[in-house]
Amino acid sequence: MAQSPTDYERFEPCGVISITTDFGHKGPFIGTMKGMILMRFPAARIVDLTHETLVHWPAEAGFWIARAYRYFPAGTLHVAVVDPGVGTQRDILVLEHDRHAFLAPDNGLLGALALAPGARAYRLDTGRLRRYSIVEPSATFHGRDIFAPLAAELASGRAKPADLGASTRDVVPSWLDEPEVAGQRVTGVVVTIDHFGNLITNIDGGVLAGFRHAVVHAGGHELPLKRTYGDVRPGQFLALVNSFGVLEIARAEQSAAEGLGLGRGAPITVTEAS
Amino acid sequence: MAQSPTDYERFEPCGVISITTDFGHKGPFIGTMKGMILMRFPAARIVDLTHETLVHWPAEAGFWIARAYRYFPAGTLHVAVVDPGVGTQRDILVLEHDRHAFLAPDNGLLGALALAPGARAYRLDTGRLRRYSIVEPSATFHGRDIFAPLAAELASGRAKPADLGASTRDVVPSWLDEPEVAGQRVTGVVVTIDHFGNLITNIDGGVLAGFRHAVVHAGGHELPLKRTYGDVRPGQFLALVNSFGVLEIARAEQSAAEGLGLGRGAPITVTEAS
Amino acid sequence: MAQSPTDYERFEPCGVISITTDFGHKGPFIGTMKGMILMRFPAARIVDLTHETLVHWPAEAGFWIARAYRYFPAGTLHVAVVDPGVGTQRDILVLEHDRHAFLAPDNGLLGALALAPGARAYRLDTGRLRRYSIVEPSATFHGRDIFAPLAAELASGRAKPADLGASTRDVVPSWLDEPEVAGQRVTGVVVTIDHFGNLITNIDGGVLAGFRHAVVHAGGHELPLKRTYGDVRPGQFLALVNSFGVLEIARAEQSAAEGLGLGRGAPITVTEAS
Repeated sequence: MAQSPTDYERFEPCGVISITTDFGHKGPFIGTMKGMILMRFPAARIVDLTHETLVHWPAEAGFWIARAYRYFPAGTLHVAVVDPGVGTQRDILVLEHDRHAFLAPDNGLLGALALAPGARAYRLDTGRLRRYSIVEPSATFHGRDIFAPLAAELASGRAKPADLGASTRDVVPSWLDEPEVAGQRVTGVVVTIDHFGNLITNIDGGVLAGFRHAVVHAGGHELPLKRTYGDVRPGQFLALVNSFGVLEIARAEQSAAEGLGLGRGAPITVTEAS
Repeated sequence: MAQSPTDYERFEPCGVISITTDFGHKGPFIGTMKGMILMRFPAARIVDLTHETLVHWPAEAGFWIARAYRYFPAGTLHVAVVDPGVGTQRDILVLEHDRHAFLAPDNGLLGALALAPGARAYRLDTGRLRRYSIVEPSATFHGRDIFAPLAAELASGRAKPADLGASTRDVVPSWLDEPEVAGQRVTGVVVTIDHFGNLITNIDGGVLAGFRHAVVHAGGHELPLKRTYGDVRPGQFLALVNSFGVLEIARAEQSAAEGLGLGRGAPITVTEAS
Repeated sequence: MAQSPTDYERFEPCGVISITTDFGHKGPFIGTMKGMILMRFPAARIVDLTHETLVHWPAEAGFWIARAYRYFPAGTLHVAVVDPGVGTQRDILVLEHDRHAFLAPDNGLLGALALAPGARAYRLDTGRLRRYSIVEPSATFHGRDIFAPLAAELASGRAKPADLGASTRDVVPSWLDEPEVAGQRVTGVVVTIDHFGNLITNIDGGVLAGFRHAVVHAGGHELPLKRTYGDVRPGQFLALVNSFGVLEIARAEQSAAEGLGLGRGAPITVTEAS
């Protein structure tokens, strides 16, 4: 019997767990999440996605996970904890999409991914935590006390996403607006800056396909659209569609962020060359 | 035959090793410790606890390990290397406690944990290193040359804590004083600051149970004791007993350290509300 | 039949992969490299060597790998991505040496290691990428799209170094000069600074064997050559041959870099005591 497309999209756990947080690397926070995972699922293979997303801002974590998950094996469970509302009434979501699963607070982190075709979201019924022996979590570290145990249950296959609660379409939307498109003019923002000082925007490379000859405006500069950093001389600014499919402002072998004096939230505009 | 309580406390290795250091992430220091572990124990599952404890100060590493170990599987070997005396005559300890084992220099790092009921400490007899083919260690990196190989031997079960040397009660005490308790007044200090700027103290939440209505004094401010960050409005200061059981000074969605201008060693006092 | 020395040097993969980059810890760059490795080689055991080498400067990554690889099991595949020329015509090398394998851009990163006796270098024939289903890599992240998949193929044993392309002796040399030796005077440079502020030079400890009583000149100071940090009082400067076999300038329990005001590239000279 042929698989339906729905079956094909289903999350069948492969034992890999990715972790994304805004915890940085000080203190035992990420380490104890991993300890808790190994306590329940000794064979887990755990990969850090990043722990240096902007603190208290779920948008960056959600931005990266949505663009990075496909570089993990099908069946990976991606847990993300950027959780300024920890211990309050915010909900917890598990999302099933494209054979991967995603576990995070319902605070906008998964807002964009929940809109993807075929994605199904489930809202954790906290009454079911007891089934998985998750009892008396602390009020301030659900990453360790709820997310890590649930990640282990999901990644080991003992719990399925639908076991955790009812399906929902009412997911908190992303804090990050989509770029504005007005005729031949697209305006987005810098979402984050990488270690090299490259400015990474929310403008999908796909929207640039409509331009005959795009010019990128950033901090008063007009930048050419190139294929890779080495296509200009060291020190020159450029724009490119990066390896995660979004527009990036760079400076060959130097920091565009420093060179342009731009940071998160800075507007970036693409127009047709005149 | 029933197990004695002592047997129940025994370390039976599960193959997990946690590593705590003050090495930061520059250079090949942590990586080569892991390489050395895998050379002897290919099936080791290695978790970083943290590598950003205050340099040359064993107290922070010891503080976190004592509070974090229970979030790892029973049978985890916790190796910690904060070792300003490397290559000198300082000793090496292995501690067996609550079904976990702990390996560190005898420089105060394990001072608090060694006092826990049921804990047993063994002092490494360096003459026995040869049994484990640990020969000609460098003078400056025992983490790689002695601690990592011993961690592998202990975590694989080839060596038991008692195999490494004689039992001892003469352990270097922690560099961190216990809080002072004077009537209805408890004074402790800030031990460390997390990535969010929360100030983490050495005041155990248990001592607060004696207060009817505790007020926390920090940097000239009087802070209310709350359950979680979201119990006050963003920007407000608060105190809480954190997920590791100690008093913490926080600022909702902001940095308490910056807002109060406080750092490590700052005194924190708890009194009864008047 | 006896093994020839050449056979003894051969890379027989053990399933361990070390990763070295200049990516830092922001963003999903290292995480997606690991995801791609696990997609092809689920049993890979992956260790981070360091991700904080100087950006766009292959010399530091190469310096550390050459000195650190031997602390990993024989059969480890070491992949290093410091790649300012990504997406341009620079080549990719795989090196087989001392039962380890090394995969990196041909930009000087492996320049020193390629000169080691018994080392054999192979230049990737990009036409063979298709054999390993490596198709349509991005122009800006070969770490994820080419190096990680190749690392998985090599570490799993599905590809041998010689399968990837022709043997070559024409490897881009290291950007780091060897120290100058003039009579009883050796002059090198600071290559990198560790988390403690120790200044790590390119002067091999072996060259110091020729001195009766070496004096180390650094930033206008004359420093004694000692065995370990604890051989001087806290706050005093010293020089030593460190655990990776090179000359290091240190300050007991403090930062030599701050104390001397020296950084990368600073000249360090060793002379005979007068």
